[in-house]
Amino acid sequence: MKNIELLKEKAKLVRKWCMVSTTEANSGHPTSCLSIADITTVLFDKYFTFDLAAPLKKYNDRFVLSKGHAAPLLYTLFGIAGAYPLENLKTLRKFGSQFEGHPVPKFKYTEAATGSLGQGLSVGAGLALVGKREKLPFKTYVVLGDGELAEGQVWEAANFASYHKLDNLIAILDINRLAQSGETMFGHHLNEYSDRFKAFGFEVIEIDGHNLEEIDKALEKAHRNTNGKPVAIIAETIKGKGISFLEDKAGWHGKPLNSEELKSALQELGDIDDSLRFELQMTEKTELTDNPQQQSFSKLKFDKNKEYATREIFGQVFTELGKSNFNLYGLDADVKNSTYTLDFLKAYPERFVECFIAEQNMVSVAVGLSRLGKIPFVATFAAFFTRAADQIRMARVSEANIKFIGSHVGVSIGEDGPSQMGLEDIAFFGAEPDVIILQPSDAVSTDKLVPLMVNHQGISYMRTLRPKTPILYGEDETFKIGGSKIVQQSKNDNLTIAATGITVIEALKAAEELKKDDIKVRIVDCYSINPIDAETLIKCASETDKSIIITVEDHYAHGGFGDFVASALANEKIEIIKMAVTKISSSGEKTQLLNAAEIDAKHIIKKVKEILK
Amino acid sequence: MKNIELLKEKAKLVRKWCMVSTTEANSGHPTSCLSIADITTVLFDKYFTFDLAAPLKKYNDRFVLSKGHAAPLLYTLFGIAGAYPLENLKTLRKFGSQFEGHPVPKFKYTEAATGSLGQGLSVGAGLALVGKREKLPFKTYVVLGDGELAEGQVWEAANFASYHKLDNLIAILDINRLAQSGETMFGHHLNEYSDRFKAFGFEVIEIDGHNLEEIDKALEKAHRNTNGKPVAIIAETIKGKGISFLEDKAGWHGKPLNSEELKSALQELGDIDDSLRFELQMTEKTELTDNPQQQSFSKLKFDKNKEYATREIFGQVFTELGKSNFNLYGLDADVKNSTYTLDFLKAYPERFVECFIAEQNMVSVAVGLSRLGKIPFVATFAAFFTRAADQIRMARVSEANIKFIGSHVGVSIGEDGPSQMGLEDIAFFGAEPDVIILQPSDAVSTDKLVPLMVNHQGISYMRTLRPKTPILYGEDETFKIGGSKIVQQSKNDNLTIAATGITVIEALKAAEELKKDDIKVRIVDCYSINPIDAETLIKCASETDKSIIITVEDHYAHGGFGDFVASALANEKIEIIKMAVTKISSSGEKTQLLNAAEIDAKHIIKKVKEILK
Repeated sequence: MKNIELLKEKAKLVRKWCMVSTTEANSGHPTSCLSIADITTVLFDKYFTFDLAAPLKKYNDRFVLSKGHAAPLLYTLFGIAGAYPLENLKTLRKFGSQFEGHPVPKFKYTEAATGSLGQGLSVGAGLALVGKREKLPFKTYVVLGDGELAEGQVWEAANFASYHKLDNLIAILDINRLAQSGETMFGHHLNEYSDRFKAFGFEVIEIDGHNLEEIDKALEKAHRNTNGKPVAIIAETIKGKGISFLEDKAGWHGKPLNSEELKSALQELGDIDDSLRFELQMTEKTELTDNPQQQSFSKLKFDKNKEYATREIFGQVFTELGKSNFNLYGLDADVKNSTYTLDFLKAYPERFVECFIAEQNMVSVAVGLSRLGKIPFVATFAAFFTRAADQIRMARVSEANIKFIGSHVGVSIGEDGPSQMGLEDIAFFGAEPDVIILQPSDAVSTDKLVPLMVNHQGISYMRTLRPKTPILYGEDETFKIGGSKIVQQSKNDNLTIAATGITVIEALKAAEELKKDDIKVRIVDCYSINPIDAETLIKCASETDKSIIITVEDHYAHGGFGDFVASALANEKIEIIKMAVTKISSSGEKTQLLNAAEIDAKHIIKKVKEILK
Repeated sequence: MKNIELLKEKAKLVRKWCMVSTTEANSGHPTSCLSIADITTVLFDKYFTFDLAAPLKKYNDRFVLSKGHAAPLLYTLFGIAGAYPLENLKTLRKFGSQFEGHPVPKFKYTEAATGSLGQGLSVGAGLALVGKREKLPFKTYVVLGDGELAEGQVWEAANFASYHKLDNLIAILDINRLAQSGETMFGHHLNEYSDRFKAFGFEVIEIDGHNLEEIDKALEKAHRNTNGKPVAIIAETIKGKGISFLEDKAGWHGKPLNSEELKSALQELGDIDDSLRFELQMTEKTELTDNPQQQSFSKLKFDKNKEYATREIFGQVFTELGKSNFNLYGLDADVKNSTYTLDFLKAYPERFVECFIAEQNMVSVAVGLSRLGKIPFVATFAAFFTRAADQIRMARVSEANIKFIGSHVGVSIGEDGPSQMGLEDIAFFGAEPDVIILQPSDAVSTDKLVPLMVNHQGISYMRTLRPKTPILYGEDETFKIGGSKIVQQSKNDNLTIAATGITVIEALKAAEELKKDDIKVRIVDCYSINPIDAETLIKCASETDKSIIITVEDHYAHGGFGDFVASALANEKIEIIKMAVTKISSSGEKTQLLNAAEIDAKHIIKKVKEILK
């Protein structure tokens, strides 16, 4: 092994800057950095293969800091590797700095934003999966804290990693005993973690996380591992290690040293050579050519006299696009026969990832895939995306490029009842900044909208329907993000109905009935919920008798489609009347439930008549 | 053991009605019921202690069906136990029936709504925890499917159950190999499950789930278990067991038999005696007296010249209320020193539940506590409630009585950065029907609002602030759900600003500055976000020069406070102008971040001047 003394010096340098930067910031988590300083020093100095000039190079190892509050350590490691002067670390946590309190993409060596705990192993599994499937030589290292091992997602990721035989994935567990508000569940009982990771199919190596020789041996073994099992290095560490008054002390979580304490801490470390650098291993020169990103489009044929479920058409379009776009990946949580990603699996098993019933891990795996240039389509019931709301939130902070497909939206799913109904999905996807939300109401619009999701960089979400709907559009109609379609109009319409998905069909039925009473309504299919097509809606309101728009949606009232319309038209003199689901639904037939929720044709008719009275 | 032949006959009766009811409904999951029919037959006939007339009696055993899609089995079991005529099961999944596609509270023997998988063990752990802490003799049985064991929450619950030594909790795992869209991760390899549950601290019993003698022995052993470990009965079962053409066949998930198939299935079962009944064990006559539910109030004293963080005051009030209300429980996910539930722990350790960093389990445990009459306060960072969004959704379907406290809301938290900022919490709590949302802006209003949450039956959510704010109210001010406070007004105000939490403080600062330019704004502290006090806002708009209300909030623009205001005033001729967070924030000082988000005093001033120009 390398000169131990030199490694010790480098570890001191790491410790110094974790403390200096947090003291300068007057906040942060120095003690959570110190416990893992020795391991990461050996890792960076001896094993980590990385080209600082090209972080996305496919031959680079990946380093995921799942315990994101140890961000100062991450920044220090790359600083000592030569990415920037160490002095820059003094901007830690300051407004505008790339060195935020928890890692974000602004810091270009961040694989994924962390700080919501327990997500890093999933991201690492996503990265490692690409390595495995594309036979790339890189390793993925994930540093986890012991507190976050209580998060169920870690165990979803562990199952996933061993099931997919990710022996290129190395989890480093920092068992420092102390969490934020007290001792962890298992303290320093390493066997509790070892037993669990072994049971979950990992190769487990227990070490003293401050013994450089043990660390080196463990990393060496992990590095050479090819037995089909992911590796967990379970390291007994000491929070605040290296500074006597911090070591293993409660009350020092998330607390920087004051200047006096820092002085005394640095004194204890002794002479430190600021010019020391990690000798990063360089990646091989050869780089794989990425699959070119390309404009996607689709033109499936439909029988105008038939009805189709948009969820089913989604599956066909997605599979069609996969033919020429090799970056597309399909991810499933055991509902592929309901979301219709099954078609994609049949065509391209090498780009399909079965995640079983573990939605949180599925979303964070997608963040890993996205980081390496893939375009993951993550599909499940819309209701079950709530299971991964935090992971979706963090995917957005990570600036990931992920396409979410939520099937079985609304009460229109029928007999299965409220647990299966996606009725808050627009609210939480819509809250996240700049997330595109689409909802096709027929086969043609589905065919046109899925490619737009591929062509858009960022997070987008599509709601698909369980029941079948008739064909509304001709094959040559064009659709765009932020667009809408007027599906019914006359020169003397009384008012406008803005609908989306199943309620477009209900509105059309209502319009037919209303005609009998000589009432004419204009109907806009708002297939783009965010951004909403304000221009068309304003035009409609100005052209109709009354400046009124009724919004109808199969979603809860707050945070739904209606609120997007109301926000966009807030400065107009247009009255917005929302029709939406306002109570917990039940089992029953689709028509009964739409009626009970008061969003069907009958209630639209009633509402229109009330307004016009 | 009991007459095996009779048990076999009863198991046949169970099978019959699982099939008959789903065929009648023309949807549902008969094969998922058949795999677990034998075990539950023995359980109900020999071990399950229950008074059908008083389901909430504290001496009753609890039965949680985590695999909610096996609902027909649940209904059949209680039917054979004598709760209602079996013929009623023919209303399964029909509109208005208590027998929904997945269990809901309308069916009074439902411990918690299930159907989103992987939540039942947590609910069971909540029930069992009450039993343990109050030394009640009941057992809690939880039936889990094998597909759902991939959900991380199951492992959070497993850790929780063994950590809290819940040896009165019995998990029955239905390892039938087949999930919805294919084989599970581990098929019939029971050892994979045994190893995992053993590692997580369970007493494990492996059985053939169709051998009545093995089942009986396992239940007997589990029933007698007092070794401090929860029990997992890991049962190898066959999906569709008992009907040859269904057994272990793919393609039969969630599919009822047609009438021909049903006929042939019933033929295969042979003669069935519809009059057979389970001999339910009766509970002891003695019943514990519940803690009386009482009106809570608090009146802490504050120094008018000091500033207080509402999160800190929450902790004090909560602890104060705990003195006289013994149903209050505090639940924490390792942030008790940040949310200030630490005060409650110190005062009442017997009513505090440390859940470690596992928010999903924490919320579902609270559902269990609520079922047994407790009033759980679940507190973490607002951002981390997104981790449990699905569990909160299901808690609402369960009609649970839970109080959520989300600290560290908005960009005002400062240096920690976006991963720690609660900016979508109003959107997803607000989407769920009838969830109360409160946000105090000072110590006094916190003191008054927490008791209102206790007195309200149902789900309520409070946002608390990290930074300190000045005292705005006198000790004798009154507050109510659905109320607001005008904190600044004159006879000739130009317009109204509706604010909540930290933005009330910013609005007040803005008002001071605006006065210098002879601009007067009325300021409403909307401490009740849902329901919103529309009446006061309408009155303000009518009394000000311009009929304009500016809403300002430290939350994302979509689905936030502004949308509640806009919805409530949609029929009024009032212009609503929203100021909210529209992009991902960063690290920095509170003032810098409020400024960057354009929701601080400076930007309020700018907006007001723009409007009045």
